[in-house]
Amino acid sequence: MTHKEDIQERLKKIQSEICTALENLDGKARFIEDKWTRAEGGGGISRIIQDGNLFEKGGVNFSAVYGTIPEFLKKELEGKSKSIDFLATGLSIVIHPQSPMVPIIHMNVRYFEIDDKIKWVGGGIDLTPHFVNEADACYFHTEIKKLCDTFSLNYYPEFSKNADDYFFIKHRNETRGIGGIFFDKLMESSGFNMAKLLDFITALAKLFAPVYSHLVEKNKNIPFGENEKKWQLIRRGRYVEFNLIYDRGTKFGLETNGRIESILMSLPKMASWLYDFVPEKNSEEEKTQAYLKKGINWLQAP
Amino acid sequence: MTHKEDIQERLKKIQSEICTALENLDGKARFIEDKWTRAEGGGGISRIIQDGNLFEKGGVNFSAVYGTIPEFLKKELEGKSKSIDFLATGLSIVIHPQSPMVPIIHMNVRYFEIDDKIKWVGGGIDLTPHFVNEADACYFHTEIKKLCDTFSLNYYPEFSKNADDYFFIKHRNETRGIGGIFFDKLMESSGFNMAKLLDFITALAKLFAPVYSHLVEKNKNIPFGENEKKWQLIRRGRYVEFNLIYDRGTKFGLETNGRIESILMSLPKMASWLYDFVPEKNSEEEKTQAYLKKGINWLQAP
Repeated sequence: MTHKEDIQERLKKIQSEICTALENLDGKARFIEDKWTRAEGGGGISRIIQDGNLFEKGGVNFSAVYGTIPEFLKKELEGKSKSIDFLATGLSIVIHPQSPMVPIIHMNVRYFEIDDKIKWVGGGIDLTPHFVNEADACYFHTEIKKLCDTFSLNYYPEFSKNADDYFFIKHRNETRGIGGIFFDKLMESSGFNMAKLLDFITALAKLFAPVYSHLVEKNKNIPFGENEKKWQLIRRGRYVEFNLIYDRGTKFGLETNGRIESILMSLPKMASWLYDFVPEKNSEEEKTQAYLKKGINWLQAP
Repeated sequence: MTHKEDIQERLKKIQSEICTALENLDGKARFIEDKWTRAEGGGGISRIIQDGNLFEKGGVNFSAVYGTIPEFLKKELEGKSKSIDFLATGLSIVIHPQSPMVPIIHMNVRYFEIDDKIKWVGGGIDLTPHFVNEADACYFHTEIKKLCDTFSLNYYPEFSKNADDYFFIKHRNETRGIGGIFFDKLMESSGFNMAKLLDFITALAKLFAPVYSHLVEKNKNIPFGENEKKWQLIRRGRYVEFNLIYDRGTKFGLETNGRIESILMSLPKMASWLYDFVPEKNSEEEKTQAYLKKGINWLQAP
């Protein structure tokens, strides 16, 4: 099996496993499935959950698009290939929970090929708690580091720093959440082994369900009121800002004529923008706001 | 008085007049005023209204930023100037009404200078009804055309076509609303007279209050229910998509280190994204959706 066949099979299987795990957690809502095809080549399987007990809106989307390389991607080649065929396949997840006490989560793993020659992988996972819980942030980073370390001790330090830089809302000068890991364009010419890279993104995708399940179970019964809902809607507004202005996956989807409803499944059911909202002094909201910065070592909870 | 002094004085005066008119309409909410300065030079006066009888959230913002030209603007020069000083001043309005039966409106006029030599004006006005009312759309376009015609018979045909192209959500293949006019980089070297251009954008800014007041008064008492609110939130979601992905003013603000809360005042208090929402057959929502395309001649209501 070629790399591209292999990784597609793996990601589709994990997609099903994750949906089953999330349905079992939720206990009410079921994922719907939409298969789509892209005029220029390829398509995807979108799986969407809405209005559940625990999950307000979320998507677990597989896609594999290919064909003639779009204009904006030619720049990526930097003279490395004269060919014009590309394939991009990946699994993308965003979950917006009902409760503001449960964090938003995102994961993406992707494999990219140009002309069967240039091959790279990318991806990441990051957590966006509406209210930062230090122990949860520590747990999240520790689980990711444990996985990274089984592949290379360099991965976590490098990729978690990338995440701080990538999941950053520049115009707000704040991070999207408490980070995680992010990596892009890992390829053999940079010293990586492709089979190992595919195992790494497979393992990361498999880590999603147990890690998020733990965080959901731990927080789902915490009581909350109107103020917490209000803050959740504001944090979701920031999430929208990140995804529409900075997110590379969104940009890639829009520029490759992907299926718009699949690309924008990452947007929450409801979001809010209040003019110049400032959290109250010494509130939980203010505490969270103060944590939205780069460089925090979440392996040692503050 | 120089052009730049003249237009700033005019726009600040009109800003006050518009705020007074909108407050009188609303009858409850008052505009708050935030003056801000930009570290690199200039600043603005933001006036924001929230939680009114009629207006849920809106801004009427004046700004005048200047200083050393930012990197991304250098491209605009195309070798026309070696200088590095710029000034950009303008008045920007977005109003999100409470009622889904009242349209969202946007207006912007702006004046730009590089090195006292390159001078241009730009701007536009467009209407985004949650539910398209043909008579209102005809009224809106007719009033704008009447004003344009007093300056040049070429303005309306050209600028209304620009608006269709500019206020377009490419990834949705739909217009933001029913259009209006849009124009950019009008300058003397293209055959315009700068004094006349400044009079044109002044007149356009003055047209805002009477035209929008008419539309608000006409529609504010139309009853609506949950379905209309739901659709309003979806249309606002599209508004957010346009502003964060395509809007040049937003981009300019973010890239010139403008005041973020002033730039993003255009975003609604509340917006919604439902996965793959499709309006019911023969509904008012479906009718509106069908009108969101380029090239409709609104001077003759369909």
